[in-house]
Parts: sequence; structure tokens; C-alpha cells
Amino acid sequence: MKILVVGANGQIGKHLVKSIQGSGEHVAKAMLRKVEQKAYFEDLGAETVIANLEGEIEDIARAAEDVDAVVFTAGSGPKTGKDKTIMVDLDGAVKTIEGAKKAGVNRFVMISSFDTSRKAIQEAPESFAPYVIAKHYADEWLRAADLDYTMIHPGMLTNDSGTGNVDVGTSVKVANVSREDIANVIFESLKNDVTIGKEFKVINGHTPIQEAIKSL
Amino acid sequence: MKILVVGANGQIGKHLVKSIQGSGEHVAKAMLRKVEQKAYFEDLGAETVIANLEGEIEDIARAAEDVDAVVFTAGSGPKTGKDKTIMVDLDGAVKTIEGAKKAGVNRFVMISSFDTSRKAIQEAPESFAPYVIAKHYADEWLRAADLDYTMIHPGMLTNDSGTGNVDVGTSVKVANVSREDIANVIFESLKNDVTIGKEFKVINGHTPIQEAIKSL
Repeated sequence: MKILVVGANGQIGKHLVKSIQGSGEHVAKAMLRKVEQKAYFEDLGAETVIANLEGEIEDIARAAEDVDAVVFTAGSGPKTGKDKTIMVDLDGAVKTIEGAKKAGVNRFVMISSFDTSRKAIQEAPESFAPYVIAKHYADEWLRAADLDYTMIHPGMLTNDSGTGNVDVGTSVKVANVSREDIANVIFESLKNDVTIGKEFKVINGHTPIQEAIKSL
Repeated sequence: MKILVVGANGQIGKHLVKSIQGSGEHVAKAMLRKVEQKAYFEDLGAETVIANLEGEIEDIARAAEDVDAVVFTAGSGPKTGKDKTIMVDLDGAVKTIEGAKKAGVNRFVMISSFDTSRKAIQEAPESFAPYVIAKHYADEWLRAADLDYTMIHPGMLTNDSGTGNVDVGTSVKVANVSREDIANVIFESLKNDVTIGKEFKVINGHTPIQEAIKSL
């Protein structure tokens, strides 16, 4: 598989590209905003492509034209303004979905947030609500998009080293999860078609990732 | 008809309630955030209901339970933060659509902005893009919602007195339009079922409103 990683320069993205390249079997194509970001990925032997999530659907479609799967793991981050929340977390995600469709790529993995339900919107503190709303509508768009999607809802992300063990499912309670483990959950999901058309939550846990994914 | 006006305390909303009450035939129900806003509408003989667009779908459904049509003419306004753009212009609109459905109200009029297309998003100045994105997804939600909707795309809104004359259609070029005229376009649309399932732009123009709506 060749896998386009949208948001490759983020922390999950960097772990994911490393895992993909480490497999010796699959290839990552890192979608980056800036030429200066290329070196890390080229050192890993990955391909790179420059495209901006605030640009046009066509730019993303072009980046995706030779890949087998697209992973959306971009995020505006907590430090940007709420304008970026709607431009990146919502519209950037939707443009990535539409770009994948335009390029004829059916396999799509979305990194959502832990809970993007209507209930979660209503219960979110006002400062967090715009982010939950943005992710809610991006998720809704993907569910309606007629792609072979997998939607991953990670717990509270940490920069701890991965443990290799997680709990997955739709009813797990919120808890920490390391970005490195999430990257491996993404890669394992891409390798296992049982995840197609499914969404699930992931937290640090007790089951080896490969086994947890198989159980879905 | 009894018509729930969501965003009644805005300038278009106030004109609309006045037109509806002035008809002597139809009744407006003004949805308001604050008790202090009631007097203006009660003086016109309109009904009022307190509900917040940042609240729950159920609150809006309750406000809509005894009406024949819902008009969404709320807007976060240019002075609020971008968080309100996504919370009101997108999520508030969607909750109003879902609230209308929940209440069994099929007739829905959406006040959109002049151009909410993908092209308009990409061409918008960065400061304006979040608003266009919010309106884009609200409009998409309504188009998919299985309601008897009318979507009105006004030109650049002014506080001038209405002229009673407009140009309508899908290919009119952007120009000014008074909020008072838009209010009358809304009311006329509600009275004429030819507008069901249609969307159109409106600017100041040369055709009497009633005639312009009939021509759609």
C-alpha cells in the first residue's frame, strides 16, 4: 500500500510515517505545507508532497492520485484561533474526503476526537465546543461519503512512548492514550479490512494492538 | 400561518415580524434569547418564546411545536468571535433544522449569504472564510434534510428602507439589498409554494417583490 498521510508533520503523523516505512512493505506519502518539513520524511525513505489544507480540493486530489489509502490526522491544534478550527478541522477534513473521492481512492482513515456526538457538543465547555462541532460535521460528512472508511476516536492524547496495548470499542470510557499507539492503531486498521465502515474509541489498555483491531 | 422567526431580534427578524403581524392574517412567534427582548414583539401582537441557539435541539423543537413554518434568520454578526460563527451560523442553523423536523414542521426558510459555494469559500479573504464555511455546511445540511425549504441568498445587506423592488434568481450579480426588502421576500416566499425546494439570490432591483417571487 501507498498511504497519503494528511497532517504528516503532526506528532501522530510523524509516528505513523515511521511505522509505515518501518514495515519495509508499505510506503508513506507525507502531505506537507512547507518544503522545510520534507527532510524528516525523506530521511525515513517516505515520499512527500506539498499541499495546503486551506487550498483547493484539486490540490489534495493531485496529492492522492497515486495512493491506495488516505489518512486524515491533521488538526489546527489548541493554540490557533477558532477560525482555523473551522478551516482545518472541518473544511480541511471535508476537502480531504472530497479529494480522495476525486482521485478514486476509496480507503480512508479519519482521526476524529473522542466524542463528537450531539451530546458531547452540548456538554462541552464553551472554549472547546467549536472544536467538537468542527469534528462532528467532518465525521458526519465522512459517514455519508460512500468511502471505505475507518473512524478512530482517540482518548486524551499524550506524548508518552507507545505501550503497544490498547482498549478499543464504542463504549470505552475516556482515558489517556499515547500518540505513538494511535499511529500504530491507524496502521493496523489499514492492514485489516475488518475495520472498514467502522468507528471506535481507543485508550491505553490491555490488548496488543493487532489483536484489538482484529476483535472489532 | 403561524411562523417561528429564529433570530427575531436581528434587523431582518424585526422587519419580518412587523410584516407578518401587519398582514392581519398570519401570526409571528419570535424566538428570543432574553426576556428583555420581548416588549418590541408583544407590542406588535406577536407571540414570543425564549430559547437559545446554543442550547439543545429539544428547546428549539419545543419553540416550534405549534407553528406552520420556521424561518432561520439568526447570525452571529461580524463583531463576535469565530467561535460564535461555528456555534451559531453553522450549529445553530443545523439545530434549528433538526428542531423543525422534530416538531413535525416541514416548511423552512433559510437566510443564507450571497454565495456559499466551494468557489466562494476558496476566494474569500481569510477573515471572512470561516463565515462562508459555516453557511456552506448549514446550507448543505438543509438541502439534504427532506424539508419543504426555501433558501434565500441576499446581496450586501443595508439598513436602507425597503424599495419593494428586487431582482431574484441564481445568476444575479452581487449588489446591495435592504434588510426590509429581504424580510418581505421571506414573507412572500412563505405565502407562495412555488418557492419550495428552491434557492435564489436577491438584490435591490426592478421587479415588485410579489411578482419576482411568482417568477421563480
